[in-house]
Amino acid sequence: MTVEILSVGTEILLGNIVNTNAAYLSEKCASLGLSCYNQSVVGDNEKRLYDAARLALSRADIVILSGGLGPTKDDLTKEVTAKVFGRELYEDPGVKSTIAGYFQQMQSVQVTENNWKQALVPEGATIVENHNGTAPGLILEGKIDGEDKTAILLPGPPNELKPMFEESIAPYLRKLQPESIYSRMVKLCGIGESKAEDMIADFMEDQTNPTIAPYAKTGEVHLRVTAKAENEEEAGVLMKPMIEELYRRFGALIYTEDEDVELEDAVAAILKEKKMTVATAESCTGGNLAGRLVNVPGISDVFKEGYITYSDEAKQKLLGVREETLKEYGAVSRETALEMAEGAARAAGADVAVSVTGIAGPDGGTKEKPVGLVYIACRVKDNMRAEEYHFNGNREKNREYTVVRALTLLREELLKPE
Amino acid sequence: MTVEILSVGTEILLGNIVNTNAAYLSEKCASLGLSCYNQSVVGDNEKRLYDAARLALSRADIVILSGGLGPTKDDLTKEVTAKVFGRELYEDPGVKSTIAGYFQQMQSVQVTENNWKQALVPEGATIVENHNGTAPGLILEGKIDGEDKTAILLPGPPNELKPMFEESIAPYLRKLQPESIYSRMVKLCGIGESKAEDMIADFMEDQTNPTIAPYAKTGEVHLRVTAKAENEEEAGVLMKPMIEELYRRFGALIYTEDEDVELEDAVAAILKEKKMTVATAESCTGGNLAGRLVNVPGISDVFKEGYITYSDEAKQKLLGVREETLKEYGAVSRETALEMAEGAARAAGADVAVSVTGIAGPDGGTKEKPVGLVYIACRVKDNMRAEEYHFNGNREKNREYTVVRALTLLREELLKPE
Repeated sequence: MTVEILSVGTEILLGNIVNTNAAYLSEKCASLGLSCYNQSVVGDNEKRLYDAARLALSRADIVILSGGLGPTKDDLTKEVTAKVFGRELYEDPGVKSTIAGYFQQMQSVQVTENNWKQALVPEGATIVENHNGTAPGLILEGKIDGEDKTAILLPGPPNELKPMFEESIAPYLRKLQPESIYSRMVKLCGIGESKAEDMIADFMEDQTNPTIAPYAKTGEVHLRVTAKAENEEEAGVLMKPMIEELYRRFGALIYTEDEDVELEDAVAAILKEKKMTVATAESCTGGNLAGRLVNVPGISDVFKEGYITYSDEAKQKLLGVREETLKEYGAVSRETALEMAEGAARAAGADVAVSVTGIAGPDGGTKEKPVGLVYIACRVKDNMRAEEYHFNGNREKNREYTVVRALTLLREELLKPE
Repeated sequence: MTVEILSVGTEILLGNIVNTNAAYLSEKCASLGLSCYNQSVVGDNEKRLYDAARLALSRADIVILSGGLGPTKDDLTKEVTAKVFGRELYEDPGVKSTIAGYFQQMQSVQVTENNWKQALVPEGATIVENHNGTAPGLILEGKIDGEDKTAILLPGPPNELKPMFEESIAPYLRKLQPESIYSRMVKLCGIGESKAEDMIADFMEDQTNPTIAPYAKTGEVHLRVTAKAENEEEAGVLMKPMIEELYRRFGALIYTEDEDVELEDAVAAILKEKKMTVATAESCTGGNLAGRLVNVPGISDVFKEGYITYSDEAKQKLLGVREETLKEYGAVSRETALEMAEGAARAAGADVAVSVTGIAGPDGGTKEKPVGLVYIACRVKDNMRAEEYHFNGNREKNREYTVVRALTLLREELLKPE
């Protein structure tokens, strides 16, 4: 079965708000095994809304409309959808008394005449209770051009839409589906998107069940493996051979197969498992590397201290980088990076330290040391390693990539046998 | 003129990512005076992408497509749009050499055969340089069903799309407009969205030229003032009374009226002007506050040192927070925040210091000190101030809000007469 998301609201078209409802609904529908091929946004305009609803209902079995159920004249979603199905509106006494009760409870808010507009319901529609607002949800089923179609109307505010979806719409949609969809996210670091895709070209070529799809994140590649099955266990059996093959091909480049685990979580988990503490020393990233590690709840078990040493003076004072090193090789050099990591480990009394020094731009580059040149060093107990990188972005992007590469290098070093 | 946004990517349809590009592009187009009546999302599927592009080009004068310009087989936007305009693709030697140069610079990443797919360009297309990735942007102009239509193809990653839009697409779109639209972004910190909206309700009520529209950002409110005029000077004259009135109403809450200036830029500018140096001491934000300051190019003039002191031990050792303070009031307390700021200023030899200590969650909260409780302290020369905040989000949101509040407090203190 196919579903389409149609978001109604001029505020989305003006870019005043980001359409998080569409992302929420799409993800929920995907997890219920519904295929979604189109999302649309249209404003509070009768003709364009009619056209958009009609088009969506011609393309998909189910259309979920959100927004435009409010009490104002602008709110037209119910009226227009009823028209697409050829239905009249009637005042539902149940909905009317619910609205009356809601306003009685909310004492401070006054009922205005147009609030009763929300009690109007298309003939034959299923009314879905709203526990967080006055606009009920609606499910309309019927024939359009001889085909069975369903429109689901939800209120726009996310704090009304989400609970209504969880409580009423998800169970309704689940009943319509014979099979469900389950997926795993295999996440890789230290490999580019096109290289990774080359290595799974055979899987991509002729996929049926399970399927695989690559997603590029900053400095990472995520591979989503998806299976259709009657239940989660069966889906697991279907996905297992493909996931095992991914481990054979990518090995330790895979840092998780859990959607919710980020690279910093994986690094923190290794530190915790090895009972090792970590310190950071940052120049161009200015705290963002430590900031990523501190994303991890409970990081205090392993995170000792972080030093932001943007100036030469701070590098010497806090990390003990030698003046001769800075003079001879410069602040952005392999030698300085190594001394920063060594100094951070020593100063913090940490088992592990990672350091970053580079030229993020836009200024500060020279011919020998251009913008984007970054050195990252890592110390794990007595082992030291430093790497040189060349990034090609603006200041923001160079710093983002540096953070991911630093985490990747740290992970690699932590995984080396002692 | 009308514009339509067509976002291409299965990851949006699956709800893996929120479509922030559409919000960004819509806002920018609105600020350029283009009317946007539809946004759509379609996956990486040839037929559906063709249908969606054709439909969008039948509805609007200009269609901005984003995503699907990557090197993989999935990426079809260029191929399909060329087909809609009846154009062939050719390999552009200029684009090819740019890609080669990009990979040469990025040493660590290997070029694979499919990277050269990005050098293919539709006949007659204008090539738009990408300074942050390998996929160039493209502008295709031509007749479709006898009408003049334009398709603008942009890469999907926001850190490539946004600079490309600013540098190349906005100037292009401005030229197409007979009357030009100019806007100013008046940015406020330290005030909530609904409060700010209340204070400009009269402007919102009956607006013609100029108009005003509020946008809520994390911890900030931005007010876009837009005027239609023949040239920038005339627009400036139209906008002046409204902007002056905004200064009368909001005063020092306004930190800039320049689109490109972020809160950290405004703070850095004051520091530079006052020739004051700054140090940071962070607990729950773990480096993100310093990271925001280091967003500012040339921050090394004023940024001395940053300390990430997540543990009690680090607070004592690096910042000299007294053991008795930690014992009596706890690490998350006004007293600790004040000692952290004092210690950071002293240790770094900085004129100004800002410190943060809080409970970001999800764990670590108690009845007396719940998740979301944060203390921020600020020291400017000998003046000290600490404030208590209660945030209501998850770990990530609480930390984001804390960083903005810390910058806001720092700015307030810096602006106080000495």
